[in-house]
Amino acid sequence: MGDRLKYSIQCSKCHSEIELKEWVWKHAKCNGTLNIEFKGLENIGFSNVLRKEYNDIRRYIELLPVKQEYVPKIPVGGTPLAKRYLGSNVYFKIDYLNPSGSFKDRGAYITLAKVKELGYREIIEDSSGNAGIAFSLLARTIGIKANIYIPKKAPEGKKRFLKLLGANVIEVEGSREDVNKEALEAERKGKGVYVGHWWNPFFIEGLKTIAYELWEQLGKKIDYIFTPVGSGGLLLGIFKGFSELKNMGTISTIPKLVAVQAQGYCSLCEKLGLSYETKECSKLADGIMILKPPRLNEIVNAIRETEGFCVVVSDKEIILALKELINMGFIVEPTSATAYAAFKKSFNEKLVDKSSNVVIVLTGSGLKVLDKLNSIIFCSNL
Amino acid sequence: MGDRLKYSIQCSKCHSEIELKEWVWKHAKCNGTLNIEFKGLENIGFSNVLRKEYNDIRRYIELLPVKQEYVPKIPVGGTPLAKRYLGSNVYFKIDYLNPSGSFKDRGAYITLAKVKELGYREIIEDSSGNAGIAFSLLARTIGIKANIYIPKKAPEGKKRFLKLLGANVIEVEGSREDVNKEALEAERKGKGVYVGHWWNPFFIEGLKTIAYELWEQLGKKIDYIFTPVGSGGLLLGIFKGFSELKNMGTISTIPKLVAVQAQGYCSLCEKLGLSYETKECSKLADGIMILKPPRLNEIVNAIRETEGFCVVVSDKEIILALKELINMGFIVEPTSATAYAAFKKSFNEKLVDKSSNVVIVLTGSGLKVLDKLNSIIFCSNL
Repeated sequence: MGDRLKYSIQCSKCHSEIELKEWVWKHAKCNGTLNIEFKGLENIGFSNVLRKEYNDIRRYIELLPVKQEYVPKIPVGGTPLAKRYLGSNVYFKIDYLNPSGSFKDRGAYITLAKVKELGYREIIEDSSGNAGIAFSLLARTIGIKANIYIPKKAPEGKKRFLKLLGANVIEVEGSREDVNKEALEAERKGKGVYVGHWWNPFFIEGLKTIAYELWEQLGKKIDYIFTPVGSGGLLLGIFKGFSELKNMGTISTIPKLVAVQAQGYCSLCEKLGLSYETKECSKLADGIMILKPPRLNEIVNAIRETEGFCVVVSDKEIILALKELINMGFIVEPTSATAYAAFKKSFNEKLVDKSSNVVIVLTGSGLKVLDKLNSIIFCSNL
Repeated sequence: MGDRLKYSIQCSKCHSEIELKEWVWKHAKCNGTLNIEFKGLENIGFSNVLRKEYNDIRRYIELLPVKQEYVPKIPVGGTPLAKRYLGSNVYFKIDYLNPSGSFKDRGAYITLAKVKELGYREIIEDSSGNAGIAFSLLARTIGIKANIYIPKKAPEGKKRFLKLLGANVIEVEGSREDVNKEALEAERKGKGVYVGHWWNPFFIEGLKTIAYELWEQLGKKIDYIFTPVGSGGLLLGIFKGFSELKNMGTISTIPKLVAVQAQGYCSLCEKLGLSYETKECSKLADGIMILKPPRLNEIVNAIRETEGFCVVVSDKEIILALKELINMGFIVEPTSATAYAAFKKSFNEKLVDKSSNVVIVLTGSGLKVLDKLNSIIFCSNL
């Protein structure tokens, strides 16, 4: 197995290298987002560094910037893949079958391992959604306190769930931006390290393991990967994982990445110059209702480099896709249905051809939002 | 890989052999429960018949009485195992990370494959709990209609969930027995085949795959396995899986099986002659509130043969165990917490010693019952 790979942390804006002496989540000097860069990947073989005794994220520990002794004490990753013939060969990555019910467990897992290694005892996150849930559940398993900042107007059910998982929930009056301000203020006051998943580079390291798993599970060329894009961590993680596989000589081409956005939250599509009609903003895709993702330029680069594209879906398309997914046996949340809706649209518009191998990442469990599913399925006339 | 193994169906009461020409779930002549018996296991090696390209239940298809072409179109099984040192080495089998959120997906998967192979288009089940949910979700994926009979007084949330999954929900006035009567009447009228999981032998075939997975994941001697026992399918499935591993020469001893029951629902413990104090009936362990399981004698035999035992836990113990499990990162339903509560009790009473390898099966996801978890965690003073 040999020595652990060396890595550095680089700023995406000014390209300078940051030394990891303490927790960092953005470049203090220029406010750029940070990324982990591994060195010497071209000298190692992917299958040689796998810890084959594990079928979860620990399998890839040699390719991750954390030490196994610090990881949360519950397995994450190693989720199933379901094949369906739907015009082309479609492979659903069932990533909602993670411990807290979403793919975000992967990002939280690696982030928390690094936080633990650096000796911190408290984290700060501003999310009342799947990321807040993932951090809350996993932090506890290694004795880290999760301080979760959420808007006072967030649904009571979400607040209760976070508290149930042992989080310290701080309710903030005002907008999403006010919540973020309060969280950063808490970090300045030394109340914990800010692990906000829109920014922190270790989160993306966790998400890149989806690419490794897809490669191992499919073992053949993937043409397209459809993912919902909010902050873009999922798409960027998958891009990074496949880029590393390419650097290791395991694959020659990175799959085309297809970013899926919801109506009204399309900064990415705008930047890519896509014309689309927005009649009204999405009310359903709450996991990707993000107006200005900090990593927008990186997402654009990933799509351009892989010759992918961007798709905008409407709530009507989300509802139809959600119904079909449940029929196929996938109990997912509405945000997850965007990726399948986008595949159907792209297939009908002949952007994806019949001979393609397509992966659709199913991101979040519907079991957490059964009331919401009920009202969508039974109260919509589609 | 060679020829498929031959099997027969035997009555547990009169030991006669039944020919499978049409769907059977009990022995019509003597009302005995039925079991599948494989022939020639001693001539094959477990690792030789594995379909290693799969990490789910299909991996074991050669040891199952169904054909792959008929299985539901969503992967089931292949769930993670989490190790914790809790006095002895404890391994939690995280079987709630199945598509519908419980271990019952395994039983429904194999049952439905057989129903499909035999050419039926509708099933009848009388469960508003995890079994009803599992059948509803998986049936749809292979075009089978699920008729689910439930008490009219069942919670509205459960009814809505079953309908959301596309089940035909039939509400019956009266007791659990009245519901069963109505379901059997529907079968007589030709409205589908009765797959009731308390009885049908194919359900146990699905559950036996937990034993195979445990053996593959641990690869060493397991001393004790703790499981909640309601109808006993889980314990009997695990017993059957390990018995077959023994017949194949893979293991020499079957782990001691520990049956866990809730106060007020202890027919098994009574039959085993265990003395215990029942102050009040459990209100929390709704998955195992079964007064007279049809396979009671078989369960007793399995416990005796493996030198296992039976433990009764109180609601107070369930609540404490549930809180600890959530702290450990496991979002489970109260019934699942019974097995961990029983382990703690047995360890404290020195029924399990420190050098033991112990498996605790975590059976059902808490995400389906978040309101219930909230009221238990926040409204109990323990």
